[in-house]
Amino acid sequence: MPEPRDLLQSADDEARALARSLLARARHAALAVTDPATGTPGISLIAFGLDPEGLPLTLVSALAPHREALRLHPEAAVLVGEPGERGDPLTHPRLMVKVRAAQVARTAPRHEALRAHWLATHPKARLYIDFPDFAFVRLAPVSAVLNGGFGRAWRLAPEDLRPE
Amino acid sequence: MPEPRDLLQSADDEARALARSLLARARHAALAVTDPATGTPGISLIAFGLDPEGLPLTLVSALAPHREALRLHPEAAVLVGEPGERGDPLTHPRLMVKVRAAQVARTAPRHEALRAHWLATHPKARLYIDFPDFAFVRLAPVSAVLNGGFGRAWRLAPEDLRPE
Repeated sequence: MPEPRDLLQSADDEARALARSLLARARHAALAVTDPATGTPGISLIAFGLDPEGLPLTLVSALAPHREALRLHPEAAVLVGEPGERGDPLTHPRLMVKVRAAQVARTAPRHEALRAHWLATHPKARLYIDFPDFAFVRLAPVSAVLNGGFGRAWRLAPEDLRPE
Repeated sequence: MPEPRDLLQSADDEARALARSLLARARHAALAVTDPATGTPGISLIAFGLDPEGLPLTLVSALAPHREALRLHPEAAVLVGEPGERGDPLTHPRLMVKVRAAQVARTAPRHEALRAHWLATHPKARLYIDFPDFAFVRLAPVSAVLNGGFGRAWRLAPEDLRPE
């Protein structure tokens, strides 16, 4: 049996366009972290968006356990792409991105630009974006796998995910 | 600031009913694993269902990288609960379950019962369930956190997730 890695195709324009579309449309994602208490995987639902340069971003409360997990173990992974109501969920396209997390201080010069951009795409966040425990965390892509349904999978690099 | 853990309520009947409902309705889940190549988190979309006793189960191809990840690092985590089309996704209930994975051999005495039960809830799996690379993997709950929206979170034990 071939190694799973051998089944992944190289990035092409179709895969890049689909991956960028999944990232641009996503308003939430599943986040896999390393639980600092146990060293085993943890998982959470997170708000998801892109910064003005098109790079993944989340807004998260310090009260959420995954914020501390990301601080202690910045290597994480996100899954975006929502199965539709019909058909087998595993035939719907989804993107799995390995990321490295970096918290953005509320005093950072870029914070105001991130805040304005986030509110344009996540208007309901206005209710809590200014609470003192909320902060942006950048999720810089390290590598990605795009799955477009059975037998259709591509390996993507960070540059394949950036908007053109 | 209090520790995040202090914000979690103890299980009550409302939380147990909501958690069991999320598990019973889920046909897919996000799965967080430890990537054996790097030791860092990986994430995948998986088919999700319950066995005849109401315990979490997935059906996965040996070609999927997460099957080997689960074999080498059985501690994993799943997220179920689909945000609706409207409103802030983070206000929708979801259940995060830490699990321990165990593969079910296709020659196991229980395999035929699992197969019949799975097909009743996942009829489209008939297309691939008998392919030789597909196998069931039990996802035995270790602990869980139910999030019912901002400020509403409960810690649940495995017995809180079992159907009554």
